[in-house]
Amino acid sequence: MLFRKDWRTFLGPGGRYILTCFPLFMGLGAITGRVALADPLPSWNEGPTKQAIVEFVRAVADKSSPNYVPPEQRIATFDNDGTLWAEQPMYFQGFFALDRVKALAPQHPEWKDRQPFKAILENDRKALLASGEKGVLEVLMASHAGVTTQEFERIVKDWMATARHPRFTRPFTDMVFQPMLELLAYLRANGFKTFIVSGGGVEFVRTFSEERYGIPPEQVTGSSIVTKFEVRDGGPVLVREPKLDFIDDGPGKPVGIQKFIGRRPIAAFGNSDGDLQMLQWTAAGEGRRFMLLVHHTDAEREWAYDRQSFVGRLDKALEEAQRRGWTVVDMKKDWKQVFPFK
Amino acid sequence: MLFRKDWRTFLGPGGRYILTCFPLFMGLGAITGRVALADPLPSWNEGPTKQAIVEFVRAVADKSSPNYVPPEQRIATFDNDGTLWAEQPMYFQGFFALDRVKALAPQHPEWKDRQPFKAILENDRKALLASGEKGVLEVLMASHAGVTTQEFERIVKDWMATARHPRFTRPFTDMVFQPMLELLAYLRANGFKTFIVSGGGVEFVRTFSEERYGIPPEQVTGSSIVTKFEVRDGGPVLVREPKLDFIDDGPGKPVGIQKFIGRRPIAAFGNSDGDLQMLQWTAAGEGRRFMLLVHHTDAEREWAYDRQSFVGRLDKALEEAQRRGWTVVDMKKDWKQVFPFK
Repeated sequence: MLFRKDWRTFLGPGGRYILTCFPLFMGLGAITGRVALADPLPSWNEGPTKQAIVEFVRAVADKSSPNYVPPEQRIATFDNDGTLWAEQPMYFQGFFALDRVKALAPQHPEWKDRQPFKAILENDRKALLASGEKGVLEVLMASHAGVTTQEFERIVKDWMATARHPRFTRPFTDMVFQPMLELLAYLRANGFKTFIVSGGGVEFVRTFSEERYGIPPEQVTGSSIVTKFEVRDGGPVLVREPKLDFIDDGPGKPVGIQKFIGRRPIAAFGNSDGDLQMLQWTAAGEGRRFMLLVHHTDAEREWAYDRQSFVGRLDKALEEAQRRGWTVVDMKKDWKQVFPFK
Repeated sequence: MLFRKDWRTFLGPGGRYILTCFPLFMGLGAITGRVALADPLPSWNEGPTKQAIVEFVRAVADKSSPNYVPPEQRIATFDNDGTLWAEQPMYFQGFFALDRVKALAPQHPEWKDRQPFKAILENDRKALLASGEKGVLEVLMASHAGVTTQEFERIVKDWMATARHPRFTRPFTDMVFQPMLELLAYLRANGFKTFIVSGGGVEFVRTFSEERYGIPPEQVTGSSIVTKFEVRDGGPVLVREPKLDFIDDGPGKPVGIQKFIGRRPIAAFGNSDGDLQMLQWTAAGEGRRFMLLVHHTDAEREWAYDRQSFVGRLDKALEEAQRRGWTVVDMKKDWKQVFPFK
């Protein structure tokens, strides 16, 4: 995500446009949803996608099944941006980075005349794009480093409490996908251990993962910058240094899975080419496997994008999913409701 | 451990000597142990150390206690070498590295004339020591890299099944500390999540942590080398590269805890100066805390060493423990039995 180091990815193709027709279909889920009392996935429409999920879970969790998998091996990994919550018009951590630069600007009078900070302070999208990969990295470090881990957690939480998504004017943590929340809970109820494997910053995602997804910090992996142990005023702190440590995206995802989890998942969930290697790695294990891609096909309730998008581009992974029979969620068709709010 | 990059640390001060008087006191635990039926720590002698452990666990796990801690925050971290299993006359991973070099030697005729490999093949301890930090790193990479993660797991497991400790002539996985196994189980029975934070290689420790300690791979953190995602013969693999990634020792331990767990422990267990920062980091959190050091004081049943030892040196941490009132296990006095075998 943020670490793909490209301003187009950072800002998205259309900028911060706000669609006006989105509420049209928003009420649909509320009317048709939650029919069967015992349905653990009420926001999923009946059909082959839901059926594939339920069938897989039964196959691995039922002791009498030939595909039974012992609970400790029921590892499920989820991408975050575009898979568990929305990612348009730009990765939400990007909004945080820009807001953070603005908040810090009074302490940095030199930013008024220095790119890419000048561009951010003047909302000059063109100049920002022109600053390229170097610019992204500079903004990333200015907004994410130079504080202790405790301070950073506080800063992100404070931002999350007040920042609003430009289109939905809601807290970003409201923009999680209701069907995926149900899927997480359903897997856990069937003995799965659910992990986040995010291209986003691990410390950023951890600030809300437990409350929002029921995923504790120790089950969140992601991209990271270097931290350093120091003793300050007699007490130990961890200081966030302006240096990339690990990029948990693309081929970095299987690396991150091995590094942090040490066990190959039997189910993996993503939405973009950045998740392809995670799905390949998952598919290559022995026994029954489940690979799923969320295809964003719903411009009304959410967004519609794939091959041409700079944010969450889905091209090669979609092709491979079709060729290998992985499950592809058609958001418009498969999801009764997109967000938890109506 | 291994990564401290010093041959003295690697081999230990006395080399592979074998003490002959060790069986004298070995039977003692068997006779006096397991008196109280309900005692969750039967291998711990009654006294202030055991009392401190039990009192801490009650204080944080009892809902009516003023020091109550919710289960999700009951994180306990354990060093491995010298804390959960023995580490003399050298770190057990060191034995693996040397044996691995010998096993690979037929494929490397050039090693016969090249240090530090020549020294290993000729059991020339002096020449090995002389190769210094550079030599350790070379042996480490030759023995740990160049294979896939799956191959490495297989290699370590095969070695573990046949290798024997020079003094006890037992598999290395027999040389875990019975009182610590009980402590792990006792903490988990009281809602704790137990983690290993090892200076040793994470992939090495993960091969036996679940079976031996009941700690799944995703709760093991440690030092690591870089791995790289590759597609070979149409299938994805992770290749272990000859490059250090992370050293989970000393100030690296709090860094590793934050990186992998993302939450500060409320209890931490170590045995050497390499654990000092982990204990400091744990102590600096809010609310009730528990810091413990295993002091190796029992030359008969195990080993006796601290300030002068190159393996598991305990000097500054012992001083700080005494000054701050951390719990120090006197192995000879506090443990009824050391190993699970008699």
